[in-house]
Amino acid sequence: MIDIYFDNAATTKVDPVCIEVMNKMHTINYANPSAKHRAGFLVENEINEATKKVANILSCDPSEIIWTSGGTESNNFAIRSIVDSMKRMGNHLITSNIEHASVKNVFKYLESEGFEVTYINVDKYGKFDINQIENSLNVHTIMVSLMQVNNEIGTIENIEEISKIIKYFNDKIVFHVDAVQSFGKVKLLPKSMGIDSFSVSGHKLHGPKGVGFLYLDKNVKINPLILGGGQQRNMRSGTLNTPGIIGLTKAIEEVFEANDEYINYLISLRDYFIDKMIELDNKISGIHFITQKTDDFAPHIVAFAVKSVRAEVLLHALEDKNIYVSSGSACSSKNKKISDTLTAIELDKNLQDNAIRVSFSKYNDKTEIDKFIYTMVELIPMLRRFSK
Amino acid sequence: MIDIYFDNAATTKVDPVCIEVMNKMHTINYANPSAKHRAGFLVENEINEATKKVANILSCDPSEIIWTSGGTESNNFAIRSIVDSMKRMGNHLITSNIEHASVKNVFKYLESEGFEVTYINVDKYGKFDINQIENSLNVHTIMVSLMQVNNEIGTIENIEEISKIIKYFNDKIVFHVDAVQSFGKVKLLPKSMGIDSFSVSGHKLHGPKGVGFLYLDKNVKINPLILGGGQQRNMRSGTLNTPGIIGLTKAIEEVFEANDEYINYLISLRDYFIDKMIELDNKISGIHFITQKTDDFAPHIVAFAVKSVRAEVLLHALEDKNIYVSSGSACSSKNKKISDTLTAIELDKNLQDNAIRVSFSKYNDKTEIDKFIYTMVELIPMLRRFSK
Repeated sequence: MIDIYFDNAATTKVDPVCIEVMNKMHTINYANPSAKHRAGFLVENEINEATKKVANILSCDPSEIIWTSGGTESNNFAIRSIVDSMKRMGNHLITSNIEHASVKNVFKYLESEGFEVTYINVDKYGKFDINQIENSLNVHTIMVSLMQVNNEIGTIENIEEISKIIKYFNDKIVFHVDAVQSFGKVKLLPKSMGIDSFSVSGHKLHGPKGVGFLYLDKNVKINPLILGGGQQRNMRSGTLNTPGIIGLTKAIEEVFEANDEYINYLISLRDYFIDKMIELDNKISGIHFITQKTDDFAPHIVAFAVKSVRAEVLLHALEDKNIYVSSGSACSSKNKKISDTLTAIELDKNLQDNAIRVSFSKYNDKTEIDKFIYTMVELIPMLRRFSK
Repeated sequence: MIDIYFDNAATTKVDPVCIEVMNKMHTINYANPSAKHRAGFLVENEINEATKKVANILSCDPSEIIWTSGGTESNNFAIRSIVDSMKRMGNHLITSNIEHASVKNVFKYLESEGFEVTYINVDKYGKFDINQIENSLNVHTIMVSLMQVNNEIGTIENIEEISKIIKYFNDKIVFHVDAVQSFGKVKLLPKSMGIDSFSVSGHKLHGPKGVGFLYLDKNVKINPLILGGGQQRNMRSGTLNTPGIIGLTKAIEEVFEANDEYINYLISLRDYFIDKMIELDNKISGIHFITQKTDDFAPHIVAFAVKSVRAEVLLHALEDKNIYVSSGSACSSKNKKISDTLTAIELDKNLQDNAIRVSFSKYNDKTEIDKFIYTMVELIPMLRRFSK
């Protein structure tokens, strides 16, 4: 049983309304949407309606939504498929040094295949060096891939401004955005913001695991990553994960039904948390805030480090009180090395081992934050004594 | 509402016991298995236990099971990842001309990349030409990929015998098997049968859509297709689809709990169906059986063609009576061309447009077959009148 779950940037609890629609797809509308009979046609129709709903939210065409198995596939798919289709036009790519592993490791692979990659640096708040982006663009550049919200510390990047710089330099360069942490929480309208493709993961917003999508502007040509029966206009073959797609669409509708309220609720939790942590710092001192209480940070993520308390120790002490938080990015598996993001923001070396991430969802409330603070008051002095 | 669903080779209804375990993963054990806290660790443990159960059924090591998004990804993953890692050792590949699109189209892609591919022919029952396989093997051959059960007509291939021929020629050649239609229905033990890798799809055996696995012998080296956080020993990154994996494992356990009974039940349906269709043929004549009532065919698939009645017409006439069947493979989307399999078995040209596939599951029974036959008695003469 999970009591206080503050690890919503890693994954979220599935919304019961999603489970309801998924179960119907499992047992009633279970036919294959590629089947030629009416049972298949009805399911195909449901998928088309779902895709239209999502396209409507994004102000794009339904043909620009490609359903995938999740954020990691979406990022791999976008980057490899776009680069493969454009490789005759140049061999220079741009990304950053704080990307999620599902972006970073694809670029490492492409480097091994002979592409030249520029890694953009960030400032101490995790913001991309826009001058470096501008100066890196050259006649060989074919693609830029950057995240909209950093998964470890919550920085919101200036995607719109960056797109203008890229497109002003050469509007043939494809701009991909990893929106796994931002979708639903930060404004993201591809057409008006100059984004050619972006990745979304279902389980980050109370949808199911194992499903996501790639937004792909219809003017961008790709060589698909996964080949087969020609589903999704040949761009991503395989029997559609119909319960996943219907479940994720429901989750997206829930998030966007009253999106401002949803975001404001998360911001209220984040700000309440930071305020209480500042009060706590006045008592116990030595709390360093990586995430700030400003519009430059996502509504749901707070990263901080506590002097003289290693993150792993604090994480396990908290779990003993049934409070679940993260140290570094949970998505990079059980990897013990210091995260690229914490290195890139040049966090004080004494604090790099101490960085904790808490991340909120609509299921959290201020009472849980109070309990968290109360537990910290109890734990921190004790843990500091033991660490001596 | 689906009354009589005879399209189980396209996809199946999810078993309620799978939904139960999945819903628990959606709402209780929803943590990310890569998380460092106890909630994540518990989920990781559940996944490890599930993987062990499947490995136990296959008499293999749990590290040889790689969870994927389904059969199409598994086939793409196996073929591309293995070929990519072996490309320095040769450029010759062998597959057949009756493979599923998720195999065939990967080989077409590899041909475009410069690989040489031999396509094995079949006899009129869909059996591979074993002499051709033997004669095609050469010093440049690095991989052979063949299906165990044909998805359109149900032929069971002699995988074990073929493996012996391949391995006798050169045991470094990797033998991949598309087991999407065979898993759970035909004997498949990779170690004793000389199979290096095989693909499984969850939704073909009452598991959920959007999940499957690849069996991959630990001695086979691959360059992964999907890169990222390093999950699954770096072989397939991405947050694990924990509800899907637990749901599929439950489905597999159900199928293998009393596997002989399960298979015999399907065979009893298939044989009853064929017997009744032979009786029907005595009345209306002109029924051509593609699938035979022998051990050379899978327990769950019957393909036949009715003279002077186009499959599409019959399919829609049946759906009006709430009976759902398939014409050709539903997995090849709404593609109207004659299937590769029907071409390869040299089905009479007058019958190629008339081929119907019925496919059974544990949820079907003989009463449904009686109703099907009764409906055919009514429909066929009428449809033949209209087709004049």
